[in-house]
Amino acid sequence: MTTTPRPYCEDFPRRVQIVEVGTRDGFQAVEGWIPTATKAGILKGLITAGLRHFEATSFVSPRAVPQLRDGAALLAELGAPKGVMLSALVPNLRGAEAAIAAGVGAMVVFVSASESHNLKNLNRSRAESLAALAEVRTRAAGAGVPVQGAIATAFGCPFEGDVPVAAVLEIARAYHAMGIRRLTLGDTTGMATPPLVRERVQALDAALPDMEIALHFHNTRGVGLANVMAGLEAGVWIYESSVAGLGGCPFAPGATGNICTEDLVYLLHECGVETGVDLEALCAVAREVERVIGRPLPGQVMKAGPRLQTADMDSVRTACG
Amino acid sequence: MTTTPRPYCEDFPRRVQIVEVGTRDGFQAVEGWIPTATKAGILKGLITAGLRHFEATSFVSPRAVPQLRDGAALLAELGAPKGVMLSALVPNLRGAEAAIAAGVGAMVVFVSASESHNLKNLNRSRAESLAALAEVRTRAAGAGVPVQGAIATAFGCPFEGDVPVAAVLEIARAYHAMGIRRLTLGDTTGMATPPLVRERVQALDAALPDMEIALHFHNTRGVGLANVMAGLEAGVWIYESSVAGLGGCPFAPGATGNICTEDLVYLLHECGVETGVDLEALCAVAREVERVIGRPLPGQVMKAGPRLQTADMDSVRTACG
Repeated sequence: MTTTPRPYCEDFPRRVQIVEVGTRDGFQAVEGWIPTATKAGILKGLITAGLRHFEATSFVSPRAVPQLRDGAALLAELGAPKGVMLSALVPNLRGAEAAIAAGVGAMVVFVSASESHNLKNLNRSRAESLAALAEVRTRAAGAGVPVQGAIATAFGCPFEGDVPVAAVLEIARAYHAMGIRRLTLGDTTGMATPPLVRERVQALDAALPDMEIALHFHNTRGVGLANVMAGLEAGVWIYESSVAGLGGCPFAPGATGNICTEDLVYLLHECGVETGVDLEALCAVAREVERVIGRPLPGQVMKAGPRLQTADMDSVRTACG
Repeated sequence: MTTTPRPYCEDFPRRVQIVEVGTRDGFQAVEGWIPTATKAGILKGLITAGLRHFEATSFVSPRAVPQLRDGAALLAELGAPKGVMLSALVPNLRGAEAAIAAGVGAMVVFVSASESHNLKNLNRSRAESLAALAEVRTRAAGAGVPVQGAIATAFGCPFEGDVPVAAVLEIARAYHAMGIRRLTLGDTTGMATPPLVRERVQALDAALPDMEIALHFHNTRGVGLANVMAGLEAGVWIYESSVAGLGGCPFAPGATGNICTEDLVYLLHECGVETGVDLEALCAVAREVERVIGRPLPGQVMKAGPRLQTADMDSVRTACG
């Protein structure tokens, strides 16, 4: 495996936690039905590869997201693997009850930073969403289930354009007031840029120093891993990504979705940042995911292999220039 | 167009020179024949979009690279657009004569940092290559044509694995001794990483402070733009890229080739670095290149649009989560 004697940047975290979201954010957009056993097999493969944190599914309306209607069955199939956190996205109290009944490890609640996106996505205002999420948080606390908060469109809105940092701070403060101490900034349609990452992380660190920040980037405009570099420089040590780069975006046909887990792990390892993940085992799972989906997925390292996998000189017609 | 009030990083260059290599490094790998007029049309579109520096073609054996056998006709078709530098890759004295006769603006000569790659690519040792290139340089100087030096496999070799920085320095010194003052580090098979970028640029700056450095990354392992971030931090202000992400790598079927010009321009503009390029006009050319090639190309921004291109709320079925 690749080893780097020293970190690229002394300010980078020494170790990063990766939250795999492929079976949620990736599979929710897939047409056709992926059997629960297939989903569970992929998650088990990822656990064997060393991943420990998953947003495994969601408990939303099966009409809205039919692909994830087997959330409870999936969690049952997985059991409670030692040292593994299986969380699920939950939009409301009904979803929370289902998640609790299914034995979820943590719940992720969400609201958009932009009013238009929240209205389009959830058919309610941000204030209405936050009021409902406070009930979810109370119910979850009663059941002993931790709640994490996510902010969609945290770096820009496909309807409104730029999203003020104040809108992000306002929701973060509302989450904080509910007792939530872990916050994901969601780059829903791939509008994050390095300056926005730095600005938002610094503002949150200053306003809410005890809030742990996770970054969830989409590679819709090709700069997902450049944004990770900016996040690392800002000290963020939790990143959400999707195996094989599963996922997409309804606003950009043909564009990619989440940043790719194995490409992220490759970058981190090469920069001297530990992840606990075995890159080659992860790439094998990514190739399996590509077979399941049945079309080429965006991940690059699964195709090219790790950088020190050398070729036989007779195996290629010409070297490239 | 997107504007950023301040640079992401004070240490970044304020302005970057982009060298478009798509019609050379991209087209050389394309099957079938692209007519000279089509190539010229693409280059003219890129000039209209604000690009000023091109590695437009190569003067190599038409048997080895049939796609670029029209180098002289292409340069004749383009004429000498004001303020535009049209360079060409030249492997030997015969190529140099052809390039001079065709009125090339500059020649790019190349040798690999690894002996195995040079043997495979050129069927001669690095020492033999450098001796031949010294003759090219002398001939070019006699004709008043500037010569730039490129080092292939500068970040790793597909046959040997890691390439010592000393091997890169040795070739850079040989180029310097020939009077060459512009050096491109070629990431031939996508093995560059941020620590390697920093290490190699710092070593070259220390050893040869009057050598201008350009970086030529491939996105084979998904980290091309993260490497650009490392290059910017190291002060490098010349980057080579390919419109629409044209190109590939014979060692990694399905993997991408050069970093994509419009994604690079997008990242730079968002980081407050000027390029002189009109991103929307560039994306229009990239989409035209995709039509010419007839299959999806890796560029993301041409598919997703600039980040502030907002959507009508009624135009999408669901917002993404």
